[in-house]
Amino acid sequence: MSDLLKNFTVSDSFLGRYEKLVKDIVIPYQEKVLKDEIPDTEKSHAIENFNAAAKLLETGKCDDEFYGMVFQDSDVAKWLEAAAYSLLKYPDKELEKRCDEVIALIGRAQQKDGYLNTYFTVKSPDKRWTNLEEAHELYCAGHMMEAAVAYAESTGKTKLLDIMSRMADHIYKRFIEEGAEGYPGHPEVELALMRMYRCTKNEKYKELAEHFINVRGVDSDYFIKESEKYNWTIWGNDCHNKEYTQNHVPVRKQTKAVGHAVRAVYLYTGMADVAIETNDQELKDACKTLWDNITQCRMYVTGAIGSAYEGEAFTKDYHLPNDTAYAETCASIGLIFFARKMLDLEKDSRYSDTMERALYNCVLAGMQLDGEKFFYVNPLEVIPGISGEAVTHRHALPQRPKWFACACCPPNVARLLSSVGRYVWSEERDTVYSHLFVGGTLDLTHTLHGKIDVVTEYPYGDKVTYKFKPDDTVMNMTLAIRLPQWSKETIITLNGKNCNYETKGGYAYLTGEFTDKDELTVKFDMSVRRIFASSKVSSNSCKVAFSRGPLVYCAEGIDNSDDVLSLSVKKEAEVETCTSNKLNGIVEIKMDGYRTITGDSLYSLERPKTETCKLTLIPYYAWGNRGLNQMRVWLPEEE
Amino acid sequence: MSDLLKNFTVSDSFLGRYEKLVKDIVIPYQEKVLKDEIPDTEKSHAIENFNAAAKLLETGKCDDEFYGMVFQDSDVAKWLEAAAYSLLKYPDKELEKRCDEVIALIGRAQQKDGYLNTYFTVKSPDKRWTNLEEAHELYCAGHMMEAAVAYAESTGKTKLLDIMSRMADHIYKRFIEEGAEGYPGHPEVELALMRMYRCTKNEKYKELAEHFINVRGVDSDYFIKESEKYNWTIWGNDCHNKEYTQNHVPVRKQTKAVGHAVRAVYLYTGMADVAIETNDQELKDACKTLWDNITQCRMYVTGAIGSAYEGEAFTKDYHLPNDTAYAETCASIGLIFFARKMLDLEKDSRYSDTMERALYNCVLAGMQLDGEKFFYVNPLEVIPGISGEAVTHRHALPQRPKWFACACCPPNVARLLSSVGRYVWSEERDTVYSHLFVGGTLDLTHTLHGKIDVVTEYPYGDKVTYKFKPDDTVMNMTLAIRLPQWSKETIITLNGKNCNYETKGGYAYLTGEFTDKDELTVKFDMSVRRIFASSKVSSNSCKVAFSRGPLVYCAEGIDNSDDVLSLSVKKEAEVETCTSNKLNGIVEIKMDGYRTITGDSLYSLERPKTETCKLTLIPYYAWGNRGLNQMRVWLPEEE
Repeated sequence: MSDLLKNFTVSDSFLGRYEKLVKDIVIPYQEKVLKDEIPDTEKSHAIENFNAAAKLLETGKCDDEFYGMVFQDSDVAKWLEAAAYSLLKYPDKELEKRCDEVIALIGRAQQKDGYLNTYFTVKSPDKRWTNLEEAHELYCAGHMMEAAVAYAESTGKTKLLDIMSRMADHIYKRFIEEGAEGYPGHPEVELALMRMYRCTKNEKYKELAEHFINVRGVDSDYFIKESEKYNWTIWGNDCHNKEYTQNHVPVRKQTKAVGHAVRAVYLYTGMADVAIETNDQELKDACKTLWDNITQCRMYVTGAIGSAYEGEAFTKDYHLPNDTAYAETCASIGLIFFARKMLDLEKDSRYSDTMERALYNCVLAGMQLDGEKFFYVNPLEVIPGISGEAVTHRHALPQRPKWFACACCPPNVARLLSSVGRYVWSEERDTVYSHLFVGGTLDLTHTLHGKIDVVTEYPYGDKVTYKFKPDDTVMNMTLAIRLPQWSKETIITLNGKNCNYETKGGYAYLTGEFTDKDELTVKFDMSVRRIFASSKVSSNSCKVAFSRGPLVYCAEGIDNSDDVLSLSVKKEAEVETCTSNKLNGIVEIKMDGYRTITGDSLYSLERPKTETCKLTLIPYYAWGNRGLNQMRVWLPEEE
Repeated sequence: MSDLLKNFTVSDSFLGRYEKLVKDIVIPYQEKVLKDEIPDTEKSHAIENFNAAAKLLETGKCDDEFYGMVFQDSDVAKWLEAAAYSLLKYPDKELEKRCDEVIALIGRAQQKDGYLNTYFTVKSPDKRWTNLEEAHELYCAGHMMEAAVAYAESTGKTKLLDIMSRMADHIYKRFIEEGAEGYPGHPEVELALMRMYRCTKNEKYKELAEHFINVRGVDSDYFIKESEKYNWTIWGNDCHNKEYTQNHVPVRKQTKAVGHAVRAVYLYTGMADVAIETNDQELKDACKTLWDNITQCRMYVTGAIGSAYEGEAFTKDYHLPNDTAYAETCASIGLIFFARKMLDLEKDSRYSDTMERALYNCVLAGMQLDGEKFFYVNPLEVIPGISGEAVTHRHALPQRPKWFACACCPPNVARLLSSVGRYVWSEERDTVYSHLFVGGTLDLTHTLHGKIDVVTEYPYGDKVTYKFKPDDTVMNMTLAIRLPQWSKETIITLNGKNCNYETKGGYAYLTGEFTDKDELTVKFDMSVRRIFASSKVSSNSCKVAFSRGPLVYCAEGIDNSDDVLSLSVKKEAEVETCTSNKLNGIVEIKMDGYRTITGDSLYSLERPKTETCKLTLIPYYAWGNRGLNQMRVWLPEEE
């Protein structure tokens, strides 16, 4: 996978712009935040925590205190990981030097036995490993392992990898050799250990990942016993909601996506990754069951997951409220991770369709177009005066803040958008899978002896062209191209002529001996489509959402006379699309609809008047970039 | 008012049945609950708390402990109040004897200085009056004062009134004579003191009520200072949400109904009652502003209030979610109290229309038809699997439980339904106002020298007949009859002939010298009507609710192939009504509509098929009496 990132250079104007934005704005901005150099925003102190830990370890004392969330370290990890991906494409000596300095600092904050965590080193040295439920030690370790792997693969420098190998060894010693009980309260280390394993080939890391997957929920009372034994708490957690932490039953018995959504999809990603390596059919089946439950019963049309603020969690099947959605950016990122692993298990477009849905809608909406503000929560309906204000809507902010006290999402967006190449392709023997349609160059020199140039205006353009560049004369291979579910008809031509291909699991398999004269062109039907939700989704009764290509659309007040709530769309209205320069360039949807004029009464016994009107819709990812206003994805439909 | 209760004997088959049900089932059932004689339900211990307090005061020690909510005493008070009303109509020596015994016990639990509260007497004697924010001492006192007034007026026995006079004197001494700071965390004592004042003519009680109204919110930090000074808490309340307790600003400056809905309407009732007595225009204006905010921006179509579980509270204008509504039964009862007082301030049908809306819909829904189960929360949409189960819907139970740990609602329903006569009439000089249409006999012997018999099949029948029964030959008077907002045309005839009347504030004023030959008949237009919500109410976009007369209707699964979520109603469908024996006799509404067949997919790009179907609606008050099933008040409308 990481090789595919290394081998694919994004160069298109859409995701390419985001990649560049992450380099130019997001990474430097977040570095400043982590170093507390941005005024008027939530304090981070994340780098200072490492300084404090280092100083304490080196001098035995330190005046500074730990500040922030117990998982504050992971903000640094995610930023380093994002920087590592970015350096791969955009070498930057200055940034690399600063990363090296941060890594050196991290090294100084590591204890002699390999233990690394500034919260416990600075604040509670005697409480290491005594509160796996809340304390995020394994979670922070996991994120730093991911950063270590990314930095090693990107720069060739292994200092952080060595640091994290020592930490992984420390964890191995404790949980495997010494047989300590327990499993992480927040999954993450499992998927990270699998990355460490692939990078270092150290079998212990795979064994450790498998161990945490296997023991989870077997003793479902572990966290209760732990809290009785050690008797301390971070958040006053005395309820031990087992579903929240997905340890209510062993993972292979889990059939519904429950609890904290980010924990859930990080866990499932780890499960799928272990299943890939171990070929464990029961584990694969559990992953598929959980996948189906998410995507068929618990996912928003934007690829967002987590219906409730309470526990940032999944709730019940078909409970998908639009205005109070939690729909955390990180959870959709985790869903992309999960989808990526499922694709490795099984080449089926339902995984890549969802990966695309989550990326182009919820995740992109998580960041302001200028890269400087972020949504943690991504509601599908926003009403100023209620959203962000009513007690039930405090989490559903109508505008993106600059930073968060719990800052998991912004650096998560950064690391995803700077590594988007990891999600675009799979390579399996002589078959290359094209999951996402992103312009750029795929280097297959070491395997299939050539390159593929991809040219596209995606997600707005309807064409993707694959140009083959064999090192010698031909590339003997199969290109498997996803046939997106949203495209009613997808036409594939080779050098302008129809060509034969086999279709399987939502992919078109084109086998040939491709020369540098060959151009495969895929043309999608980019007609605007109406999306209908299951009638079991109470909040979307008789409503419709709009999409064009992979993009889900929404109506924003600013384009619709400042009042979206009174709008309905005409059932059979013709839709027009028009390219607009606004919002960095979008395709707008315009159509006829109605506006209901209800007057001042709360309730009326007279049918309100309706006027015909023109509706304007914009892509959901671009909402909230033009000030405070109403927004709605699902619109009522009328005859 | 209490005279009007005494003077009006309900005898119709609708509210009369409820009154009888309260006597036969609810009062004996709740007595058993309070005495812990009902198995398999929440323990009450409310009577035992009084026993424990009495024993402790008499012997200086007691093995039993206080159990329950800090306001557990109020359950006994509300039950006594309900029993008092019931005894007025249905004398019952046995019940009266048991009430006397409970009152004697209460007397024994009163401290020498007049203080009465079992929580503080048994559990925390040293903490009296040190936590007005949470400890409900004034609230419990208020409820017991209401019971005392009711029992004295009903039975002529003043023992409880004497007890509560001593308690009121104790409170007067503390807050007026000694000048103690503070005001109640839960308003109630204000309206109760006004009842004490009217009953005893003791001006001190009016002065005390006025005092609590006047000081509220003037020092809006009082609860903060109190908690800093005494440093103890019942619920770990360290946030001091001033809006929750309506002390954010002085009451005359309050313009939005905020915070805990029951606290709010109890406060506003007290404010209105003080304004009636003091003729305080500023206070009257504040009441009207708050009334308008509730009824024009924050009230459900069922007369329910409180949009959020969090704080059992009002939220923001037009935020009226159907499935997560709090809509507490007690809050609608409080809204009825408020409406009643507003009618005393101003004879305008907007108060009586709302009083009727709340009574016939939300409040009646609060009790199972058999009188043995109760709703605390009255949602307008219920989905088994989500309602009562999703973390956001835990409060919105899909079926009525037998009792609650916090049992405020069941005895509140009992006292309201056994005193419904208080809300039916007003008498002002020679004018009698007919606010609600309830069959029975109004005794005006001592004022207008006669009686009025009211005959009606309301709320199902469309006619109300007023038969005059002068003591001598004529009753020289004005009958002012409410013209309900829901009736498109209301025809009033005197002895079958049209008659002249003046219309003002939604009332028809008929003046005459009525003899025993005179029958005034009012005929309403009881056509089924569609109700449309303001487009600002996001949850009701393009939806419609149905009503017939005062009753709001709903669709329940059991009448609609177990699936209400896929139903929509036809815009111009003819509606049929048919009388049914089910649910103790109702009028059902049937009409043509559509069922959407969406299949198994969560999202589909194909328009789902629709089938025409027949919809059946039942009155909202009767829902949830036939097992677990879906329910919806607001239904999407289609062409």
